[in-house]
Amino acid sequence: MPRFAFKVEYDGAPFSGWQRQKDQPSVQGAIEAALARLEPGPHSIAAAGRTDAGVHARGQVAHADLAKDWDPFRLQEALNHHLKPAPVAIVDAARVAEDWHARFSAGERRYLFRVLNRRARAVLEAGHVWQVPRPLDVEAMRAAAEALIGKHDFTTFRSTMCQAQSPVKTLDALEIEAAETEAGREIRFRLRARSFLHNQVRSFVGTLERVGAGAWAPEDVARALAARDRAACGPVAPPQGLYLMGVGYEDDPFA
Amino acid sequence: MPRFAFKVEYDGAPFSGWQRQKDQPSVQGAIEAALARLEPGPHSIAAAGRTDAGVHARGQVAHADLAKDWDPFRLQEALNHHLKPAPVAIVDAARVAEDWHARFSAGERRYLFRVLNRRARAVLEAGHVWQVPRPLDVEAMRAAAEALIGKHDFTTFRSTMCQAQSPVKTLDALEIEAAETEAGREIRFRLRARSFLHNQVRSFVGTLERVGAGAWAPEDVARALAARDRAACGPVAPPQGLYLMGVGYEDDPFA
Repeated sequence: MPRFAFKVEYDGAPFSGWQRQKDQPSVQGAIEAALARLEPGPHSIAAAGRTDAGVHARGQVAHADLAKDWDPFRLQEALNHHLKPAPVAIVDAARVAEDWHARFSAGERRYLFRVLNRRARAVLEAGHVWQVPRPLDVEAMRAAAEALIGKHDFTTFRSTMCQAQSPVKTLDALEIEAAETEAGREIRFRLRARSFLHNQVRSFVGTLERVGAGAWAPEDVARALAARDRAACGPVAPPQGLYLMGVGYEDDPFA
Repeated sequence: MPRFAFKVEYDGAPFSGWQRQKDQPSVQGAIEAALARLEPGPHSIAAAGRTDAGVHARGQVAHADLAKDWDPFRLQEALNHHLKPAPVAIVDAARVAEDWHARFSAGERRYLFRVLNRRARAVLEAGHVWQVPRPLDVEAMRAAAEALIGKHDFTTFRSTMCQAQSPVKTLDALEIEAAETEAGREIRFRLRARSFLHNQVRSFVGTLERVGAGAWAPEDVARALAARDRAACGPVAPPQGLYLMGVGYEDDPFA
């Protein structure tokens, strides 16, 4: 059966997450239902990253096996038609080899976490940022983040529900930028790694926020990492600031 | 009575517009209700621009007369508390002279219109942009926009419901920029004038879109303007791409 890769954008707010669940709306379920309008199902699609409830995506990647050898652009258009009005869009589609796998072929995941750092509640950005009223010290957060770069046992920063076999991962980048936007000051955390543990990005951001607020010293983050103890983690940041921005493949199917 | 000026941000989606209406949610009504939680009403506030249903604001300005000589920051915080959960936030507050008027003292209004120029439906930007699937020629739109700059009789570009005494206005700027964003190509129209006619910005953008799509020649816009006839206008762009960005005052109360 021909295999197709999809680049998917979605607003996580109305979904219980990527993964299909009984009686709960999911992004996977929405796309599988749209596929069933094109070819009789059941369909089962696989994604590079199973995002949690409320987490958004600009560049999630998934694959599906179909009976017909669709023109990728027409397939994309047909799926987008049937996805309406769910806040999910296929922004690219490509034919891939039958052994290509959205999850197992992925060599890199990129995440963005957006913090709106202002006193007034988020209005036009509501649901798309974590609004933090206290001013955050970006330099202190950057100093603290250095300890997280590289290969570490990230037990402190993984959910107790995490199903990964090993807590050892290599974090390739954690960059923090402050930008003046029309809504005020926005702080953006950009992270890159081959793969992430469950809740790793939100655990990082929630802990670094404590440093930015002055409640933790930058060295406390290195100590928390070294503790290899979930109890040493700071608060977990809320999901609505998090975006799966893109997935890297040795052979990019969308190039 | 002490008079206060407010800078207001709102998402226009759930409102029938700025102006208070019986049995319909309005931004004015939401703020007046919040004021009534602080001091017995009725309150009646005035705004620089009475935005239509669905139109957003980053920098609407309004004023209110209160009995108490509030500290402006505490007043802002109290109003924001009572505005919850409506998508309205007071982002600045100031004490102003008793003859200062949000509408009549204003010397400039600035608007932004956002077009998401991509094939896939807007998802994370849904409700905040006009999604136009056909590629738009920015150079052609810029050439057409030149005819609109300056002092003109804008009868063609005003709603038949417009209550302004004269259709003659001076458009100080209409700039069009194309930006590559994480959602794809975005085209931003930035407009500046002492004041605007009803539906003027949306009439401009809807007409310029026809030029960008190649359906109209740039000269057709100059001809439409010269016709001074509402029937010569192109389609009116939808409200969800429009933002009142700011209002200029000789003495800026928020400076």
